[in-house]
Amino acid sequence: MKKSLEAGIGKSALQLVLANSHELEETKSRVSEAGFTYCIGKTGSMDMQKVVSAIETAAKRQHIIDEKLYREMHALYHAILEALEGVTRGQVLLGDVLRTVGLRFSVVRGMPYENEAEGEWIAVALYGTIGAPIRGLEHETTGLGINHI
Amino acid sequence: MKKSLEAGIGKSALQLVLANSHELEETKSRVSEAGFTYCIGKTGSMDMQKVVSAIETAAKRQHIIDEKLYREMHALYHAILEALEGVTRGQVLLGDVLRTVGLRFSVVRGMPYENEAEGEWIAVALYGTIGAPIRGLEHETTGLGINHI
Amino acid sequence: MKKSLEAGIGKSALQLVLANSHELEETKSRVSEAGFTYCIGKTGSMDMQKVVSAIETAAKRQHIIDEKLYREMHALYHAILEALEGVTRGQVLLGDVLRTVGLRFSVVRGMPYENEAEGEWIAVALYGTIGAPIRGLEHETTGLGINHI
Amino acid sequence: MKKSLEAGIGKSALQLVLANSHELEETKSRVSEAGFTYCIGKTGSMDMQKVVSAIETAAKRQHIIDEKLYREMHALYHAILEALEGVTRGQVLLGDVLRTVGLRFSVVRGMPYENEAEGEWIAVALYGTIGAPIRGLEHETTGLGINHI
Amino acid sequence: MKKSLEAGIGKSALQLVLANSHELEETKSRVSEAGFTYCIGKTGSMDMQKVVSAIETAAKRQHIIDEKLYREMHALYHAILEALEGVTRGQVLLGDVLRTVGLRFSVVRGMPYENEAEGEWIAVALYGTIGAPIRGLEHETTGLGINHI
Amino acid sequence: MKKSLEAGIGKSALQLVLANSHELEETKSRVSEAGFTYCIGKTGSMDMQKVVSAIETAAKRQHIIDEKLYREMHALYHAILEALEGVTRGQVLLGDVLRTVGLRFSVVRGMPYENEAEGEWIAVALYGTIGAPIRGLEHETTGLGINHI
Ligand SMILES: [Mg+2]
Ligand SMILES: [Mg+2]
Ligand SMILES: [Mg+2]
Ligand SMILES: [Mg+2]
Ligand SMILES: [Mg+2]
Ligand SMILES: [Mg+2]
Repeated sequence: MKKSLEAGIGKSALQLVLANSHELEETKSRVSEAGFTYCIGKTGSMDMQKVVSAIETAAKRQHIIDEKLYREMHALYHAILEALEGVTRGQVLLGDVLRTVGLRFSVVRGMPYENEAEGEWIAVALYGTIGAPIRGLEHETTGLGINHI
Repeated sequence: MKKSLEAGIGKSALQLVLANSHELEETKSRVSEAGFTYCIGKTGSMDMQKVVSAIETAAKRQHIIDEKLYREMHALYHAILEALEGVTRGQVLLGDVLRTVGLRFSVVRGMPYENEAEGEWIAVALYGTIGAPIRGLEHETTGLGINHI
Repeated sequence: MKKSLEAGIGKSALQLVLANSHELEETKSRVSEAGFTYCIGKTGSMDMQKVVSAIETAAKRQHIIDEKLYREMHALYHAILEALEGVTRGQVLLGDVLRTVGLRFSVVRGMPYENEAEGEWIAVALYGTIGAPIRGLEHETTGLGINHI
Repeated sequence: MKKSLEAGIGKSALQLVLANSHELEETKSRVSEAGFTYCIGKTGSMDMQKVVSAIETAAKRQHIIDEKLYREMHALYHAILEALEGVTRGQVLLGDVLRTVGLRFSVVRGMPYENEAEGEWIAVALYGTIGAPIRGLEHETTGLGINHI
Repeated sequence: MKKSLEAGIGKSALQLVLANSHELEETKSRVSEAGFTYCIGKTGSMDMQKVVSAIETAAKRQHIIDEKLYREMHALYHAILEALEGVTRGQVLLGDVLRTVGLRFSVVRGMPYENEAEGEWIAVALYGTIGAPIRGLEHETTGLGINHI
Repeated sequence: MKKSLEAGIGKSALQLVLANSHELEETKSRVSEAGFTYCIGKTGSMDMQKVVSAIETAAKRQHIIDEKLYREMHALYHAILEALEGVTRGQVLLGDVLRTVGLRFSVVRGMPYENEAEGEWIAVALYGTIGAPIRGLEHETTGLGINHI
C-alpha cells in the first residue's frame, strides 16, 4: 500500500521546484523528514540534450544515484524522459521547433510505499517556462517522471 | 513582461491540485488574491473521454469558461489535452493500455502577464495517480496545460 | 522527375475534398484528364475505426484498389493513417479525447511521375471539421497521405 | 455558428498554398473579400527550426500578427506546430531522419464564425514536397493548423 | 559490463518468439542455461488492452514476476508498452485504426550484466502479424522492451 | 495467402541481425534459399541521420534497391522509419535526448506471399544496444519495418 499522498515522492519533487525562495528551506526540511534524499538545480537551453545532461550530472554529483550502476542511471533516465513529455506536451523537441526552456529541476529518491519490499523509487520534477527564444514570449510548463530504482 | 513566477497561473493551478486538505483554503485564497478565477474537482477513470468530460463540465458549470463561445471551449480543450500529455507521458491512452487514473484537477483563468494587452489565459493542472486497475499498483502523475483564451 | 506540381496527385486529392459544390464537376474533370482515377465520399464519427473503414470501403467498392491484393490494401492503409495524422495533429484519437470529425475524403490513384518506372501511387486527402460533439464547436482540419502502390 | 465552409479560414489558407501561378491573384482576391488578412511565402530546409522561423518572420513582417503580443505569437506558434504534424505525419522531424521539405506557406487571420463574439482566428497552411535530400526523390505533403487568437 | 550479446536477455526473448516449433525446445534450454527464467504465450486481438492483459497474466501465473509487488508489475508494464511501440510503429493503437494483431510473446527475467550489482532485468518480446481484420491482409511485426526490475 | 511464418521476410531480417558470428553463414544461406536478397551492416551513432544514411547507403550499394527509382527508395525509407520506432520506443530521437545506439541492420527483399501478384516486399531489421554515451550503460533494442516495394 501507498503512503499518504500528503508526502508522496512525486508531490515532494513538485514542491521542490514550485517553492518560492522564502518557502524553499521549509520544503527541503519536509522532504528530508519524509525520508527522501534529493537534489535541485536549474537549467535552461534550446538544446534538449543539455537539459537531460544537467539533471543527470546533478543527480550523480550529489550522489542521489550511483553513476556506476546502470540500473540506477536507467531508472533516472526514463524518469527524466517522462518528465520531459509533460514539459513538451507532444513532441520532445525544443530548438528544432524554435522554442527554449528555463527550468528548475528536482530529483528525489526514497521509499514511497509502506511495504518496504517496494524498495526505492525516483521522481524527477521540472517547472519553469517554455516559449520562443525571446524574453517574455513564454508560459509556464511542468513535468513529472517516476520510476522504481 | 510576465508577472513574477511566484504567482503564475500555472503555479496557481498546480498548487490547487497539490494542496493537502488543511492547506486548500489558504491556497484558494492566494489564487483568488492573485486575481484568478478557478474551479477544482476530482475524476477517476480508465476512460480518457470521461476525464476530459469531467474537466470541461466543471469549468462550464462553475462559469470559468463560457460554453457558448467556441473560442473559450477551444482554449480549454487544448489546455486539457496538453495536461493529459504530462499525465500519460507518451501515448494519451488509459484503458486501451490497461491503466487507470485517479486525478484532482484545477482550471484557472486570469491575466498572468503585466501587459494587460496579453489578456486572459487558462491553465489546467492535473495531479493524482496512474497505474494498473488494482488498488495500490499505481504511482503519482501530473500534467499542466496553458493556453491564451 | 516529377510532373509539374500543377497536376500533382496530392494536389488533385486535396482539390477534390476542397471543391465547393459548383466547382466539383470541373475539378473531377481535371483530375480525370490528368490520368488519375479517384473516388470521393463523406464520413463523420467519434470513432476513428469508422473513418478508416468508410475510406477503405469506398476505395474497394469503386475499384480504386483491388481488395484481394494485400499490397494495394497496405498502400491505401498507410496513406489513410498518414492523412489522419494531419487531421488529428498529435494523437490519432477522436472519441477517446472527446472530439468528433465530419470529413470529406478522396482517394486518388495514378502515375504522378514522368518516369513510368515509378509506377502507380495513391493519395488520400481529408478535409472537414473537428471539434467537440456539439454543433458549431469545431474548426476545419485537413490531412494528406501519399504512398507508392 | 460557423460561416459556410465555402469560405472557411482553413480552406482559404489551403487554397493560397495550392493555387497555381495563374490562379493566385484570383485566390488572393477571394480571401481578401472574405474579410481575411494573409501572407504567403516559401521555405525549404532539412532544418525544422528554419521552417518555423520563416513562417513566424513572414507573419510578423507583414503584420498578420503583432509580434509584441505573446498571445498572438502563441496562437501562431501552435498553429504552425499543428500544420507541421500534417507535413511530417508521425514524428516532427526533418534532417534528423534524413528528409527535407520544400514548402509554400500561408498564414490567414480573420473572423471565421458568424457570431462576432468568437473573435479572430488564425490558420497556417503548408503545401509542397517532402523526401530525401536528392532532387525528385520526394512526394507531396500538406498540413493545416487553426487556432483562436 | 555487459555479458556477451550472444546470450543477451533481449536476444533470448526475441529467440523465444521467433523459434519455429522444431527449434523451440533447444531455444528454451539455451535461455534456461543462460540463467534466465521466462514464460511464453500467444495473444491475438484488435483490443490492445487484451494484449497487455494476456502478457501480464502469463507473467504473473508463471511466477516470472511477483504480482504483489508493484515495482515488479511496474517494470513489466513499461517493458510491455515499449514492446508495443515496436509492434505499432507510431501510434499505440489497434482496433481504433482498424487493425488487429496475432502475436507470440515472451517475458524473460534474469541478470544480464556481469556486475551482479546490476541486479535483475526483464525483457518482453513480441513477434507475429499485424494488419486488417481479414485473414492474409497482414505482415510481420516485432517489438522488444527491456527494463530493470 | 502468406507463406509459412517459418520463412517470413521479417523473421529472416531479424535472424540476420540476431545471428551470432558462428551462426551467420547458415542464416544467410537459409535467407537466400527462401528466395530473398539481402544486405547486412553495422552502424552506431548519436545522430539518427547517420543511422538512416548507413542503411540507405548499404541497400543502394549492394543493389537491394534501385536508387534511381523513388518508389523503391520510398519503400525502404518508410521501412527504416518503422524499424526506428521499435528501437526508440516513443520519440524517434537519439542525441537530442542524450542517448546513442550501436546497431546491426539488415535489409531483405523478396516475395513473402504465395500469391505472386503480391509482388516484392522489403524488411528492415535492427538489433543492438541503446543507452547513455558511456560504455556499458546500455541495453538491447530492436526494430522491424516492413513495406511493399
Ligand atoms: Mg510508470
Ligand atoms: Mg503553448
Ligand atoms: Mg512517404
Ligand atoms: Mg484545435
Ligand atoms: Mg530503457
Ligand atoms: Mg504496414
